Amino acid sequence: MASSSSSSSYSNPPCAACKFLRRKCLSGCIFAPYFPPEEPTKFANVHKIFGASNVSKLLNEILPQQREDAVNSLAYEAEARLKDPVYGCVGAISVLQRQVLQLQKELDATNADLMRYTNNEMGAYNPRRVGYGSGVGSYNPNPGYYSYGENPGHGNN
Amino acid sequence: MASSSSSSSYSNPPCAACKFLRRKCLSGCIFAPYFPPEEPTKFANVHKIFGASNVSKLLNEILPQQREDAVNSLAYEAEARLKDPVYGCVGAISVLQRQVLQLQKELDATNADLMRYTNNEMGAYNPRRVGYGSGVGSYNPNPGYYSYGENPGHGNN
Repeated sequence: MASSSSSSSYSNPPCAACKFLRRKCLSGCIFAPYFPPEEPTKFANVHKIFGASNVSKLLNEILPQQREDAVNSLAYEAEARLKDPVYGCVGAISVLQRQVLQLQKELDATNADLMRYTNNEMGAYNPRRVGYGSGVGSYNPNPGYYSYGENPGHGNN
Repeated sequence: MASSSSSSSYSNPPCAACKFLRRKCLSGCIFAPYFPPEEPTKFANVHKIFGASNVSKLLNEILPQQREDAVNSLAYEAEARLKDPVYGCVGAISVLQRQVLQLQKELDATNADLMRYTNNEMGAYNPRRVGYGSGVGSYNPNPGYYSYGENPGHGNN
């Protein structure tokens, strides 16, 4: 049964996007499944950073089953950009890249300690996890695609 | 001295943004310092993902000395979104978060090996770097702000 609203042709409350854009939320609205009316800020943020038209285009270019993930990642990026207009979520990437480098350094040093210690003091002892130099414990903290410049500069000034 | 161009009131070649948008690149153009004509793709990407109007608004809201960093981070985000329309650079954040967790686990295990070994076998030996459990070597791989959901799902299907 339709709601008691007498204003137009839709029977459900408009999604957050249509409410924000002050338009009718018709059946098949591309935004409706991902921007429920209970979460108005989600759409407002995404619209402010990317623009409703760009988001609509993007959603139409990907598979329906990927759209929820896409909207959530856009919402995450938008929120990060609103919190940090200069770096957005790229700031998080810089911080995480530094964390990975620092942890890798720490792990290499600990493995070196263990290796040196076992070689010098005990001779034959070979702990399972020691992979100093290569192999186990070898991570690539800069796998190319995620590299954000050589000197991101974030937080260095 | 002005160039030999006779077409309009600007003396320099238009920036990549104005060229793309087919408008005059006037003195004081907000885009010109960050979108040189030699890098047309940089603007095209940013425009496709964020829209020129949103980028212009954002640049006007931040300090001039922060604008270059802002444009570079926007260009990075835009390129990541074009490469991966579903996750964009949030995919990189998920990967890096998993790397941090994995490295932390590896470091804890190596420290535990070292600690157990030195306690059981050698008694008094206390290597400088061992900080198992807390203190040195203790990282927080999920510092809240960078947390992308509890189950990012990226790459898990």
